[in-house]
Amino acid sequence: MSVSFVPIPEGSDFPLENLPYAVFSKKSKPDKHRLCVAIGDYVLDLKEVAQYYAPEHQAALQSHNLNLLMSLGHEAWDAVRTRTQELLTKGSVVDVNDLRTVCLIPQSEILLHLPAEIGDYTDFYSSIHHATNVGIMFRGADNALMPNWRHLPVGYHGRASSVVVSGTPIRRPLGQTLPEGAEKPVFGACRLLDFELEMAFFIGGPGNQLGEPIKVDDAWKNVFGFSLMNDWSARDIQKWEYVPLGPFTAKNLGTTISPWVVTTAALKPFLLDNFPQEPEVLPYLRQTLPFNFDINLEVSLKPADDNETLISKSNFKHLYWTPLQQIAHHTITGCNLRPGDLMASGTISGETPDSYGSLLELCWRGTKTVELQNGKTRKFLQDYDEVIIRGHCEKNGLRIGFGTCAGQVLPAHPVD
Amino acid sequence: MSVSFVPIPEGSDFPLENLPYAVFSKKSKPDKHRLCVAIGDYVLDLKEVAQYYAPEHQAALQSHNLNLLMSLGHEAWDAVRTRTQELLTKGSVVDVNDLRTVCLIPQSEILLHLPAEIGDYTDFYSSIHHATNVGIMFRGADNALMPNWRHLPVGYHGRASSVVVSGTPIRRPLGQTLPEGAEKPVFGACRLLDFELEMAFFIGGPGNQLGEPIKVDDAWKNVFGFSLMNDWSARDIQKWEYVPLGPFTAKNLGTTISPWVVTTAALKPFLLDNFPQEPEVLPYLRQTLPFNFDINLEVSLKPADDNETLISKSNFKHLYWTPLQQIAHHTITGCNLRPGDLMASGTISGETPDSYGSLLELCWRGTKTVELQNGKTRKFLQDYDEVIIRGHCEKNGLRIGFGTCAGQVLPAHPVD
Repeated sequence: MSVSFVPIPEGSDFPLENLPYAVFSKKSKPDKHRLCVAIGDYVLDLKEVAQYYAPEHQAALQSHNLNLLMSLGHEAWDAVRTRTQELLTKGSVVDVNDLRTVCLIPQSEILLHLPAEIGDYTDFYSSIHHATNVGIMFRGADNALMPNWRHLPVGYHGRASSVVVSGTPIRRPLGQTLPEGAEKPVFGACRLLDFELEMAFFIGGPGNQLGEPIKVDDAWKNVFGFSLMNDWSARDIQKWEYVPLGPFTAKNLGTTISPWVVTTAALKPFLLDNFPQEPEVLPYLRQTLPFNFDINLEVSLKPADDNETLISKSNFKHLYWTPLQQIAHHTITGCNLRPGDLMASGTISGETPDSYGSLLELCWRGTKTVELQNGKTRKFLQDYDEVIIRGHCEKNGLRIGFGTCAGQVLPAHPVD
Repeated sequence: MSVSFVPIPEGSDFPLENLPYAVFSKKSKPDKHRLCVAIGDYVLDLKEVAQYYAPEHQAALQSHNLNLLMSLGHEAWDAVRTRTQELLTKGSVVDVNDLRTVCLIPQSEILLHLPAEIGDYTDFYSSIHHATNVGIMFRGADNALMPNWRHLPVGYHGRASSVVVSGTPIRRPLGQTLPEGAEKPVFGACRLLDFELEMAFFIGGPGNQLGEPIKVDDAWKNVFGFSLMNDWSARDIQKWEYVPLGPFTAKNLGTTISPWVVTTAALKPFLLDNFPQEPEVLPYLRQTLPFNFDINLEVSLKPADDNETLISKSNFKHLYWTPLQQIAHHTITGCNLRPGDLMASGTISGETPDSYGSLLELCWRGTKTVELQNGKTRKFLQDYDEVIIRGHCEKNGLRIGFGTCAGQVLPAHPVD
């Protein structure tokens, strides 16, 4: 195994085998957005080192977001990754002093931004445990899963403009709700604000033309990499608005993603068999390749002026539908995907109550509480609560991580 | 009334009082996108005349799409419109020969493109007659309107990537459907392909920050202008997929808009009182300004190798919810809008059966047919059918139009 000349602290998310991409700026020049990869406690400024890459990849590395690199396709991604690993390996082909002094920047000196211009954002509903839990709570155990759920990856179009990077505060929304038993809706601040533990992937490759579906076994070419996501949800607003056209203002108040994009290549050591599907799906969704990953996910809740508490431990592997099936289904009617588009998993819940991916499920619709430190409890989020999602893979001594996806709840604006 | 030195043919959509914007290229240079306004059978190339406008507006007029002009806000829009009218008026301040030879291009020599880069596209469901018709067909007359319908403008996030300009062919989609009485879904070409007569408006102004709602009586500052829309819909696919998260692949197969953006300023002579709302809406949706328009809408259907038949006559004025209420509701939970975002009305049906805005309603769920010329009939769209939407306003001898929004259905790809 190669070793980097950059020191990798014990338990770091960012060894030489990871190299997740991000868009950063120096705190001293906050508006100058550049690409980087993380390595240990540093980032490698890809604009500064672009000259050491193949000429056809240099423009993408000098760009201000990842869209162009995403568009180049998997062969370019592999070549760039290999070259980055060479540059950062002990005995690098490039003068190490030069790399150290100019191209490596401590993460403490940078700001991180959205990794790409997101043309469209789609949210799926692909965790069977989550869909079952929600179904039991709202429709009873006998009709928990909708008739279509095992036949297609249910999803909906989300709002791209309100996808924000980790660290952006989220304002508790105002909106309409129908109180229990009331005949008319009322207006006010959301009372049932929740998080949703999700993962999301960015579309890469040149994209498909309108009217031309992507085949399930070709779809891996369109998966650039993965980030963590918190799909903030106003449960009380959603309940009143969502029939018949789905969630709208209950979700577009903000969706937080982690700044780091962990590539599919970095995740390969953690490949798992796909989740077993019963009944068998229609041929256009039948996938022969494994494309499931063992990614440990954690949610912590940090009240204002208190320590954080770990409140859920889940895993990407619980997803019933794979990213490749999601792409095949998304495009089956001809929808065109573009590099930089974002596809989210939906809430990822495991089988056991300590692995549920939302307060709705952890507190079972408000019938119990989550215990925090110092005697505090929660059923839904309170003002100034911070939700912190983390993710990492670990196997045979190799650990790669996703960094954090965090956001704090600000109080609602006063009602006029 | 001012008169242009450009001849305006009788019945033209594009007199001096209209001046709709578009993005065009010359057929001889198809990749060079520029802005224009329509005048009679010509367009005025705004890049060529940008020098005659205020310095702070010139960059927007020299751009390759309308996003920058949209972002400048209503005072800039008014100033630019006034100046364009001055330039095109008889006795223009600018040398008319120069304008004629260089800056005016016959519409027969140009291609038209999408007017803006659409960051996000939202589709509302704001026609009470349409929502009632659909409700009666699927749930019976007693529960036709959902309980939330009169309290908020129901809407959902659509797919921005698949919004295309008039003239783009639409491939009949493949997808999953559940046949009547079947237990398992089947895969194949959509059998119930439909159009939806809609109008859409583009968001302008600088946009709002995440977490900062736009007030209903301020929202007019965010309406740049209007286009025609056909929201193609795969009814059989939609029926199976849409519970519980709304329409997804049934809609993202393509959404057609007309290339011309008719500004709010041009529509002012056709202002009407808003549709009466009962019960009274919550304060954040209470609108004191009129923002409803008398816009005649027509749908024609043209089978392959036959003439077109007018199959529906509707009007924008039938919309229960106004664009300003749509904006106020869309942003109430904090969603940020950006210049270039597109907001559609939903199908616009009138009260009478000849004014319904979809084949679903015109043929009442397949129980009757629409009569075309030469003995042809339709319940849903057939391959090679072309759907043509037109719109115009007329009052006191002034007529302004929207051009056409057209698209032809191509046959589905064969199933593997």
